[in-house]
Amino acid sequence: MARTAGSHSALTAPRIREAALSLFARHGYAAVSMRQIAAEVGVQAGALYNYIPDKQTLLADLMRAHLDDLLEARAALPLRADPMQALEDFTRFHIRFHAERPDAVFIAYMELRNLEPDNFAQIEALRRRYEDTLTAILVDGQGTGAVAVADPRIATMAIIAMLTGVNTWFRQTGRLSLDEIEDIYWGMTRRLVAA
Amino acid sequence: MARTAGSHSALTAPRIREAALSLFARHGYAAVSMRQIAAEVGVQAGALYNYIPDKQTLLADLMRAHLDDLLEARAALPLRADPMQALEDFTRFHIRFHAERPDAVFIAYMELRNLEPDNFAQIEALRRRYEDTLTAILVDGQGTGAVAVADPRIATMAIIAMLTGVNTWFRQTGRLSLDEIEDIYWGMTRRLVAA
Repeated sequence: MARTAGSHSALTAPRIREAALSLFARHGYAAVSMRQIAAEVGVQAGALYNYIPDKQTLLADLMRAHLDDLLEARAALPLRADPMQALEDFTRFHIRFHAERPDAVFIAYMELRNLEPDNFAQIEALRRRYEDTLTAILVDGQGTGAVAVADPRIATMAIIAMLTGVNTWFRQTGRLSLDEIEDIYWGMTRRLVAA
Repeated sequence: MARTAGSHSALTAPRIREAALSLFARHGYAAVSMRQIAAEVGVQAGALYNYIPDKQTLLADLMRAHLDDLLEARAALPLRADPMQALEDFTRFHIRFHAERPDAVFIAYMELRNLEPDNFAQIEALRRRYEDTLTAILVDGQGTGAVAVADPRIATMAIIAMLTGVNTWFRQTGRLSLDEIEDIYWGMTRRLVAA
């Protein structure tokens, strides 16, 4: 079947990302070669370079895409005015978004060490923008008196680590559904910050 | 200077572990060869096999040593009878122990994927023993009425993820000392579980 270069490219680029994501998550960035990624996609190694200049760009693209998706999905949620309601929405959103993307989350944390300085700065800035949305809720809650935390920035890091930690043990086949886990974590988050 | 085989071995084995720890943390287990580890230690690759049969054994040994140290250090702390005091001790101990060993902590979480099944089961059993010490404090606290959590096991995972998360952002040169961070995290942990 004849395919135009455009449609071919449109199909291949996402497949390269998907293959790289899976291989990096399984073996680690440093252990995976462009040749292995090409083999997983089913193209010649040389053809890969039509889509991506090098492995570092691929890693940074994967992390950027993950954080762009995160920021976009977060921005699409209506932000409720009440800080505790906004915090509940954040908690449930964060758990669900991350539980659905274990490979991307794993790479986003673990392969920071392999980013070159410019890419690292870009990725950190995106991550910081996401963290800032939680800090803003906590500061807002301090303003209304609903929230009392010693340090909103540290509380942000603590809550995000606690919620992302679900990924280290959650299995779809476990004793609790993700809905039940959301409920339990919202209970803990609420108590952690409530005045 | 003449050295006996015994003293040589006693000196080399820890240096192999130290080199492997550092290389695995920087590049990832899968990307590091026994040859690179030997070069870092300053011995021939062949000599390495006098100390360690293969890279998998080395990885499992590193993780086991980390968790043995953790369990030993934890067991050395007097366990206070009051559950909230015991929880405070756990919180401060966990943060300090992990902040002092960023490479070992990084590997203990990140390289689980590279453990063969028998090693994985052993490492998970050790980790579970440590987690159980926290769950026991929470259950104890539920008994005295000091603690109210929906699910002691989930609260255990949440607290450990929150506390270990300090490692992802803490720098000795930052605006807060580790003592101050301990205080803030103890405040959050207390509120998270207090009845």
